Amino acid sequence: MENQENVGVSSGDRLCVGFQGVSGSFSEQALLAYFGHNVDPYPVNMFEDVFTSLKKNQIDYGVLPIENSSTGAISQVYDLLNKYDCYIVGEICVKVNHHLLGIKGTQIKDIVEVYSHPQAFEQSSEFLNQYPHWKLIPYYNTAKSAEFVENKGSKNIAAVGSEKAAALYHLDILAANINSNTTNTTRFVVIGKELIRKDSLNKVSIVLSTEHKAGCLYNVLRHFAQNNINMLKIESRPIKDIPWEYFFYIDFEGNLEDETIRIAINSMKRDSHYFKILGNYEKYHE
Amino acid sequence: MENQENVGVSSGDRLCVGFQGVSGSFSEQALLAYFGHNVDPYPVNMFEDVFTSLKKNQIDYGVLPIENSSTGAISQVYDLLNKYDCYIVGEICVKVNHHLLGIKGTQIKDIVEVYSHPQAFEQSSEFLNQYPHWKLIPYYNTAKSAEFVENKGSKNIAAVGSEKAAALYHLDILAANINSNTTNTTRFVVIGKELIRKDSLNKVSIVLSTEHKAGCLYNVLRHFAQNNINMLKIESRPIKDIPWEYFFYIDFEGNLEDETIRIAINSMKRDSHYFKILGNYEKYHE
Repeated sequence: MENQENVGVSSGDRLCVGFQGVSGSFSEQALLAYFGHNVDPYPVNMFEDVFTSLKKNQIDYGVLPIENSSTGAISQVYDLLNKYDCYIVGEICVKVNHHLLGIKGTQIKDIVEVYSHPQAFEQSSEFLNQYPHWKLIPYYNTAKSAEFVENKGSKNIAAVGSEKAAALYHLDILAANINSNTTNTTRFVVIGKELIRKDSLNKVSIVLSTEHKAGCLYNVLRHFAQNNINMLKIESRPIKDIPWEYFFYIDFEGNLEDETIRIAINSMKRDSHYFKILGNYEKYHE
Repeated sequence: MENQENVGVSSGDRLCVGFQGVSGSFSEQALLAYFGHNVDPYPVNMFEDVFTSLKKNQIDYGVLPIENSSTGAISQVYDLLNKYDCYIVGEICVKVNHHLLGIKGTQIKDIVEVYSHPQAFEQSSEFLNQYPHWKLIPYYNTAKSAEFVENKGSKNIAAVGSEKAAALYHLDILAANINSNTTNTTRFVVIGKELIRKDSLNKVSIVLSTEHKAGCLYNVLRHFAQNNINMLKIESRPIKDIPWEYFFYIDFEGNLEDETIRIAINSMKRDSHYFKILGNYEKYHE
């Protein structure tokens, strides 16, 4: 509820919020954790559908995974944030625990095939490596994998997914918390149509490109240090059609209304070839 | 042949070179383009197997994809380069053209399911979006997808893969060059057990981490500009077990024997929390 106020919505409105996946996915969990249960979750098939739904006013906001603490950036979402005219208005982190799921009566020794998202396999690799004869089959996402296992109804297949997916698709947890890293967390961004401005905002995201010659990237980054701004993250993504040139996605602490942030942004714009503000929002804290 | 000399091998030796995938994969193509045909390609199942095979002396070198010009870093390979004690001794770029493949007689209108690596789907998304009813099924890699389509022998399934995979698995090209980006290129690194030193080497790769406070990353990067060194690329990867802290993988121009490079590296080591040289090698040029 508090977060509905953060994104500038009065408490009377019932929001419609888009996410990629099906019921029981971590994206839906993030959405409900951020907005509370007084919203209408709007599931779509692809990450890009969240952006187009927002553009067409079919949803008020969208929630998208952007980074996992073990496996890193979700690069497709970075590219889409740059492609579409929308803004990051919030972020939330969700602890991701994976379990091995199967229909009732499934025994570990009978499993032949395991379905899940490739990132879930990667995050559970230590557990899965104990069963080298299992065929790991990459599938759309963890919730769809659980749904697939329920529909097949076979004791020879299993899925890697969440506790919520187990409950939704009537599966047993055959092995709990199989992710190697117990601090495994996914960060989600909340996107909206307008840039928000508020005193409590303390994190800025930008994307820029520089000329492809010695010192150009450094020349932009120096404005962080010169203005004593804490750069939190830098991520490179290729510029399509120009091999080996990059967009740099940078997160840093601050509020767009701060004088030092304004000075730094103006200097960076001057020294960049391309520059875009992706959003100003409240940094997630537990 | 010339490249066998580059990595310090006398022309009499017949090399054994590891790659992930099966015959007909782009990795094998890169391997043959780099070392010539007088080598024994050694296929393994997983990226990590290339590193363990090198450690166990089962192979002399390994070839691994590290970055695609359209879809970006292959993050698992970055993590493995940091995990294992090996060095980058060379790099090569291979143009990646994807085709839609099916058994003889397959017609586009009959296709129901398409198998391929998720990156190949991403690279061919404009073409695939014309057929929204096709079920895109993520599979190990493009060559294995082609093999799967041959084995199934059905006119209702297709694969996205290379011309070489089509020839190897007796498939027809149903639609040629379906990748959206015609300059689609994958960069591969060649890994070996020893750091090489030679006058012609002109590209250095390092990985480092800094303390998690304002200005620390900038403090390391300033040594590039101060020594007039051209930073080519920076890539962040999460540090496992420490959420939201990163290893930075940086490529820059130079030879480890150069005085300015030595000064910059010593300064960066001093200002980093963790620092490792990943290799010095010849930058790829066509």
